[in-house]
Amino acid sequence: MSEIVTAGMVVIGDEILSGRTKDLNAGYLADLATAAGIDLKEVRIVPDDEDIIVEAVNALRARYTYVFTSGGIGPTHDDITADAIAKAFGVPCEVDQKAYALLDAHYRKRNIEFSDARKRMARMPRGAVHIDNPVSLAPGFAIGNVHVMAGVPSIFQAMLDNVLPTLKTGAKLISQSVHCPLPEGVIGGPLGEIQKAHPHTVIGSYPKFRDGRFWTEIVVRARSQEALDPAVAAVQAMIVENTPR
Amino acid sequence: MSEIVTAGMVVIGDEILSGRTKDLNAGYLADLATAAGIDLKEVRIVPDDEDIIVEAVNALRARYTYVFTSGGIGPTHDDITADAIAKAFGVPCEVDQKAYALLDAHYRKRNIEFSDARKRMARMPRGAVHIDNPVSLAPGFAIGNVHVMAGVPSIFQAMLDNVLPTLKTGAKLISQSVHCPLPEGVIGGPLGEIQKAHPHTVIGSYPKFRDGRFWTEIVVRARSQEALDPAVAAVQAMIVENTPR
Repeated sequence: MSEIVTAGMVVIGDEILSGRTKDLNAGYLADLATAAGIDLKEVRIVPDDEDIIVEAVNALRARYTYVFTSGGIGPTHDDITADAIAKAFGVPCEVDQKAYALLDAHYRKRNIEFSDARKRMARMPRGAVHIDNPVSLAPGFAIGNVHVMAGVPSIFQAMLDNVLPTLKTGAKLISQSVHCPLPEGVIGGPLGEIQKAHPHTVIGSYPKFRDGRFWTEIVVRARSQEALDPAVAAVQAMIVENTPR
Repeated sequence: MSEIVTAGMVVIGDEILSGRTKDLNAGYLADLATAAGIDLKEVRIVPDDEDIIVEAVNALRARYTYVFTSGGIGPTHDDITADAIAKAFGVPCEVDQKAYALLDAHYRKRNIEFSDARKRMARMPRGAVHIDNPVSLAPGFAIGNVHVMAGVPSIFQAMLDNVLPTLKTGAKLISQSVHCPLPEGVIGGPLGEIQKAHPHTVIGSYPKFRDGRFWTEIVVRARSQEALDPAVAAVQAMIVENTPR
């Protein structure tokens, strides 16, 4: 059986916590990580506050195989992610010569000033390696098991496309969803018994509420078809048994 | 000046982390808390894992005025929030007689079985008080500064409507958004100077990328109009100064 590969995510930005911007990156990472066989185990949405970023990154990088961050790597005063990551790793945050040269050439070619603000985007923790940014050039970076990416969704997604193929991935979690017209109150007991009888699955029960009535989406997850199928069959039989005729 | 009132949130559920369900509750809380003068400072999305829930709740309740949770209070085996909150507070999780009587009467009237699964929804940490659920009856609860609510968005929202008027709120953060056609690389330096010159504001800079070009949304936040207005004026003047004529 393949190794279990896990991940944590830190979403960085006051604008998410004020409600002004609705985060899309966590859901996007959740989808792609799951598809790649990486279990996303925890997401923290934190403000532009160095101490809280450092705490979140250090907690998650100790606990999970990989950590992904989004946000705070642009050229303005509220972009403090590079400094915070350097602090988390106890290394200096300094101008990366390769990133500097890359940006310098880019702006020079376009006859755009390589301003002090733009130079901030060449700063990285010492020892970081680039994550290419095919959208707007300024790179993200990886240090240790932490992958630092942009907050703008189109750039986050493009960077993630570059990162995912470089990671080890685990046995994919396969899942099957079973539509259950009955509410959780009816199936809760027998579903718990099915979970106990199928310890190599994780059975989730998601109540849905529409037009004044509850129904349930039941999702059975496992790392092999052999584990999945009998549990799904048991769920389906249980629904039939509990449906009034 | 009013007290600063802060909040943390714990979103509970494997289905969010697998990408199957996209969380809506954090963004909803962010909007309503901000409008009420409560600063949402941190959100953690955690799996159906007792230890991680306990850690998150204990970390956030020590740090912020209020904590809100969503998810995991239904009748099935994966609904472990009540137990986890009890453990976080070091109190027993037990059947709440008032909740039991409420649910018993509800199901009796409708001639529906009050199943063992449904009885799970009457369990709460000892000392918790109810949060009414006008949608589907089964109450949430509050203990200490922690408010435990459902994950189904319509129910979460209805519960939050019941909770918010009972909380103390702070001076509302007022904000003004300034559209800036220039990219962050141009305005980053002068915007940082404006932030320094207006310490009673928090100026956020949010890069937007469309059709191959960057523009910037600049948001100035403050707790008084007197602090806000001069900073906004400075930002507007800075944009004019830096726009090529």
